[in-house]
Amino acid sequence: MTAENMDELVSLAKRRGFIFQSSDIYGGLQGVYDYGPLGVELKNNLKAAWWRSMVYDREDVEGLDAAILTNPLTLRHSGHEDTFSDPLVDCKNCKARFRADHLESDVCPNCGSNELTEPRPFNLMFQTQVGPVADGENFAYLRPETAQAIFTNFKNVMDSTSPKLPFGIAQIGKAFRNEITPRNFIFRVREFEQMELEFFVKPGTDEEWHDRWVADRLNWWERQGIPKDAIELFVVPGDELAHYSKATTDLMYRFPHGLEELEGIANRTDFDLGSHTKNQEEFEIKSQVKDNKDSNNKLAVHDLETKKWEIPFVIEPSAGVDRGVLAVLNEAFKKELLEDGSERIVMRFKPHLAPIKAAVLPLKRNNEDIVHKARQIKRQLSRLGLGRIVYEDTGNIGKGYRRHDEAGTPFCITIDFQTIEQDGSVTIRDRDTMKQERVSEEGLADFMLKHISNPSE
Amino acid sequence: MTAENMDELVSLAKRRGFIFQSSDIYGGLQGVYDYGPLGVELKNNLKAAWWRSMVYDREDVEGLDAAILTNPLTLRHSGHEDTFSDPLVDCKNCKARFRADHLESDVCPNCGSNELTEPRPFNLMFQTQVGPVADGENFAYLRPETAQAIFTNFKNVMDSTSPKLPFGIAQIGKAFRNEITPRNFIFRVREFEQMELEFFVKPGTDEEWHDRWVADRLNWWERQGIPKDAIELFVVPGDELAHYSKATTDLMYRFPHGLEELEGIANRTDFDLGSHTKNQEEFEIKSQVKDNKDSNNKLAVHDLETKKWEIPFVIEPSAGVDRGVLAVLNEAFKKELLEDGSERIVMRFKPHLAPIKAAVLPLKRNNEDIVHKARQIKRQLSRLGLGRIVYEDTGNIGKGYRRHDEAGTPFCITIDFQTIEQDGSVTIRDRDTMKQERVSEEGLADFMLKHISNPSE
Repeated sequence: MTAENMDELVSLAKRRGFIFQSSDIYGGLQGVYDYGPLGVELKNNLKAAWWRSMVYDREDVEGLDAAILTNPLTLRHSGHEDTFSDPLVDCKNCKARFRADHLESDVCPNCGSNELTEPRPFNLMFQTQVGPVADGENFAYLRPETAQAIFTNFKNVMDSTSPKLPFGIAQIGKAFRNEITPRNFIFRVREFEQMELEFFVKPGTDEEWHDRWVADRLNWWERQGIPKDAIELFVVPGDELAHYSKATTDLMYRFPHGLEELEGIANRTDFDLGSHTKNQEEFEIKSQVKDNKDSNNKLAVHDLETKKWEIPFVIEPSAGVDRGVLAVLNEAFKKELLEDGSERIVMRFKPHLAPIKAAVLPLKRNNEDIVHKARQIKRQLSRLGLGRIVYEDTGNIGKGYRRHDEAGTPFCITIDFQTIEQDGSVTIRDRDTMKQERVSEEGLADFMLKHISNPSE
Repeated sequence: MTAENMDELVSLAKRRGFIFQSSDIYGGLQGVYDYGPLGVELKNNLKAAWWRSMVYDREDVEGLDAAILTNPLTLRHSGHEDTFSDPLVDCKNCKARFRADHLESDVCPNCGSNELTEPRPFNLMFQTQVGPVADGENFAYLRPETAQAIFTNFKNVMDSTSPKLPFGIAQIGKAFRNEITPRNFIFRVREFEQMELEFFVKPGTDEEWHDRWVADRLNWWERQGIPKDAIELFVVPGDELAHYSKATTDLMYRFPHGLEELEGIANRTDFDLGSHTKNQEEFEIKSQVKDNKDSNNKLAVHDLETKKWEIPFVIEPSAGVDRGVLAVLNEAFKKELLEDGSERIVMRFKPHLAPIKAAVLPLKRNNEDIVHKARQIKRQLSRLGLGRIVYEDTGNIGKGYRRHDEAGTPFCITIDFQTIEQDGSVTIRDRDTMKQERVSEEGLADFMLKHISNPSE
């Protein structure tokens, strides 16, 4: 069972400190959210799982962390200045503005008037003035995607790491889009985070690699708790493809508000490197690129067999971090009726994604020995490097369990009189089964290492 | 020995893939940098060390990850709209602009003219238009510091985690300042990252906590490889204090370009929560705050003893991530003359900060058994969760060692004929001593776990 609707998730997210409306005390900022104490851990764990699988577990991918502020030339030659827009419609009556393809009828959803303008393109990129001279020329864009900086750094990465085709460059970071109508919680927002891999391959092997990445990414999401049957593959029809794409497969997840894109895997051909390279005439560029007289670098690889410089094709698995968090929250959400007739909400996160790995609870918070032991165990477990371990000083074990069910903490470890007076053993209560078992003090670290595993496979 | 000058670091950073000028192929973007394959790991490791020490190793700090786009009301009530500026001077002759306090004389450094205007305040905050209506009213700031979102989320965090004083909220993230003259590599930049803790304490205990945090932070930097004797404490004189501060101690590190601020630890009193709270008249606010009729939330804690609501004081250790990276690079840099008369550059990073924890090298890259074994060991070590392990297919062991000296990789593990034909043992070559020892295959994981330790203490 997932959440019944988005409201259930929004409410839990605020109450338990996963996600808050940004600038809340000043009436918010539309389409912008903050991650609270549990949310920051969940989001960081999801990003770390992606990075581990993309960079650490492979031999053919390098990482990158480029800036948000972007030279306008980058986004001119990428095609964003010309084409990165949504169709905007004005209501002539109330002056409200809408995204044309989100309107369900020819009527203004705000005032009911049917006097709407024809749609016109609205560029989604945010701009900001840079430097002390406000002449309108010195500006930068906030990047609308992380991908472009991977292309513009292609030569830098080649020169410093000497990779051979096929190889990839991975990046996680913020991107910004001035959405006309942000909506559906953290699904369609103006400030968001992406996890993008640009995987460069020899032309001719691109279709095979495209298929491999679609399969790989489905497996990865499954390891994050998103089952394959919750995702539909959508092969984007030819006439709907973005200008750079030869083929795109979207992973469509059933979000609480409907089936929408969680990740897109595109075959971008040689469009990007071909658009950003200097001396375009030296290469047999297969895609339609515009002239580039601004670039100062050749973005190509030297083929040792043919002795020719060639622009590789690129396969791009591009996932939304916030959309991933939303999907993970939704899949983890369970409302259960317990034997005693009460109800509990439990977030069944995969252990490696859980914001808190374990809570250590003293049975009595006014018993010095128990408290001392609990703190000591908290410190010891923290040193394992598995993530956050908390000392939970609630004084009421039952409430502590409920609290950590909602936080999705896999294990609650209780220190009681038997621990300090007899054998040092502690009880471990399992989030999902709610069963308790006693584990010896020495066995605790092994227990945690075994259960909070790194899901690399 | 640290680097002789900044150029040495800039050159190594580009060559080995730590840091590149951003938007490089289009002539760059002043004061903006990208982190390459080694840089992203180094930076992430430094941030992780901070997070571990602030959030995981303590019991009294919660994390947060708030948005960059910020409601202007936040930065009006924080005082930034009025006061967050640098003195700007124009050259009447060549029209160049300078930061007045960075000028060394009354002469324009660009054209030599002495016709300079009087300094006037230039606000450092970047703005961007938000939403489809460009009426000049719908804009957001790019946050100039992460701190403010901690204050505006104070109630959200209180409500979801129920902490007791003293407690802190920690955040790592990007911030933006439209510096008039960015300079000194990644030291003074327009896009940067901060690690900020706001630690809320009972008024009256603030001075004691201030001292404790100064000491704590010095110890932390020492564990990152910045020795205490490379840092001078600068107690900011009363007349130079920021408007919100009762006392500030700066940790001044000897960067290659001079002694400058690495981290500031400020006693911000009740200025911030007092400025952002609603119903200010209900509290005895000790600092000078302006009226706030916009906030919809009470930012205070209920004192169980006095039964009164009180606004806590806050101690803020605020460190620059990029400045930290620069200091770590500088301290790690060593140029050594070897016995054979050759020279090596070695980056002596603390192991937990090293971008690559170990490189696994096959002695012969055309021997299938050796290659197979090397890849297998690479995969096994990757699963330990210590960070990045690479398979280094150079074919020349000596060159591989030099390469990883410059990358700061603590250990190079070589798989040779003895490994596959005799006892499975491998050689481990130590970056700093350049000595090799043979370790059994079974002992390898323990060796790595022991040496790439988590420096929590």
